[in-house]
Amino acid sequence: MKRIATALVLIPLAVLAVLRAQPLLFAALVAVVAVAAAWELYGLAKAFAVEPYRGVGLVAAFLLVISLQLGGAPPGASWPLLVVVATVLALLLRALSAPARMNRSLPDVAITLFGLLYPALFLGLLVPIRGRPAGPWWILFLFIVVWGGDTAAYYVGRSLGKHRLAPRVSPKKTWEGAIASALFAGVLGAAMAHWAPALSYAAFKLHISGEYLLAPYAAGDGFLLALLLNVVAQAGDLVESVLKRGAGVKDSGTLLPGHGGVLDRVDALLLATPVLWYYLLYRSS
Amino acid sequence: MKRIATALVLIPLAVLAVLRAQPLLFAALVAVVAVAAAWELYGLAKAFAVEPYRGVGLVAAFLLVISLQLGGAPPGASWPLLVVVATVLALLLRALSAPARMNRSLPDVAITLFGLLYPALFLGLLVPIRGRPAGPWWILFLFIVVWGGDTAAYYVGRSLGKHRLAPRVSPKKTWEGAIASALFAGVLGAAMAHWAPALSYAAFKLHISGEYLLAPYAAGDGFLLALLLNVVAQAGDLVESVLKRGAGVKDSGTLLPGHGGVLDRVDALLLATPVLWYYLLYRSS
Repeated sequence: MKRIATALVLIPLAVLAVLRAQPLLFAALVAVVAVAAAWELYGLAKAFAVEPYRGVGLVAAFLLVISLQLGGAPPGASWPLLVVVATVLALLLRALSAPARMNRSLPDVAITLFGLLYPALFLGLLVPIRGRPAGPWWILFLFIVVWGGDTAAYYVGRSLGKHRLAPRVSPKKTWEGAIASALFAGVLGAAMAHWAPALSYAAFKLHISGEYLLAPYAAGDGFLLALLLNVVAQAGDLVESVLKRGAGVKDSGTLLPGHGGVLDRVDALLLATPVLWYYLLYRSS
Repeated sequence: MKRIATALVLIPLAVLAVLRAQPLLFAALVAVVAVAAAWELYGLAKAFAVEPYRGVGLVAAFLLVISLQLGGAPPGASWPLLVVVATVLALLLRALSAPARMNRSLPDVAITLFGLLYPALFLGLLVPIRGRPAGPWWILFLFIVVWGGDTAAYYVGRSLGKHRLAPRVSPKKTWEGAIASALFAGVLGAAMAHWAPALSYAAFKLHISGEYLLAPYAAGDGFLLALLLNVVAQAGDLVESVLKRGAGVKDSGTLLPGHGGVLDRVDALLLATPVLWYYLLYRSS
């Protein structure tokens, strides 16, 4: 119940932000989510006796996502890089001023930067994706194939699931659920591609959004892209399970009632977003 | 003596590679250096009881640098990202197949990816820098202001140095040496900018290179850029010292007679190269 109630609040908010928010506001919202996810990742690190430079890392994670909006491409392509360089310099100053931590320097620095890469840069790519032609459409596409697939996995896995996918890491996941997730995502992707012009026209007429779908999109391509994104998303989910299992915790946090932490909710997006970003660049080149 | 002999072999080779190598060969040479540096970084990690996924990390470091050559900008801007995503997936497979390492997963993964970022991506930016207008010139500029400044720091520091820069990390470094390094680099930068057209013409006439300097460059700008690159390079040097001091070693490796390891030799370039990359993008935009 709590899980459904939270979803009923968060999903409309997310859709609204994707369709209507000003670009800088959208970047700020993504940055806040990325910072929360990095915070939880840094929390996991403690279980491994590694101590990230939290302050530096969280400020840098925020700036990194914002930099993806403020710097236009191609010069902007290097803004995140500058944030990372500045972060390394800040970590140097912190390390020099805290000599007691010197004998932990390499893992501490590596984890801090991992927080910039894994939640912040990967999730932050939603910002330049949204800035592209038909960008909001592609983000909704991503959300639907990832979270729709998740739902299929849950119900099919519970009723038909027999073969464990990764028993040591995530005991409830089954191959049956994973395959159902990918196939259902493919069907959703094909349907979205097929009805994209009609959906877009309806959204425009209902004042939900401007005309944001620029090119027709073949249903077969929609199926394949959705399948790919879903498989990568499931792998992203497993990556986080490996990290949590290593830390000996079940949820990365408790921020979202019934859903665990922010990282638990976005883990599937973390690897799928860069793949979508690359696909869109490749397709338009 | 060993130190000078090694330098007399390596410097002409580096200059030759910058001026004459085919683009893909140049990328492969940078990739080999980056892999060697990542190998040494992974070696340092052992002292911190962290165990990188060496095989995955080194292959990915190589591919990352090559990807900076093979993918043209702007789509190419995301090739390194794809390498990172593929690396995370490979690490997932490694982690799932080695459950005994599960309870070390987060630091192990973070260090592995740190090897992709800190030596490989940062050094790898030499590849797209070289592909830009007057690219080889800018790389020589970088080498000269970094290594020229280093030489000034060594002699001035030894004869006049009194105030320690970072006694706990790098006891031999002095403020006098650091300031001499920055100023001498600035003078070198101004001189190179002033004589750039003549140097470029001479190199062309002597068949050392094609005409590669496209725009005249003010001596004042050369001074400031050289100063900035030198200061960032010295910080990069200190970053590596912090990591080595934490690991309790003096050199990162023993590959280069008299110079320690590869990482010891390129550490100053690691942060300065992204700054030069950003400067060139900014200047041309």
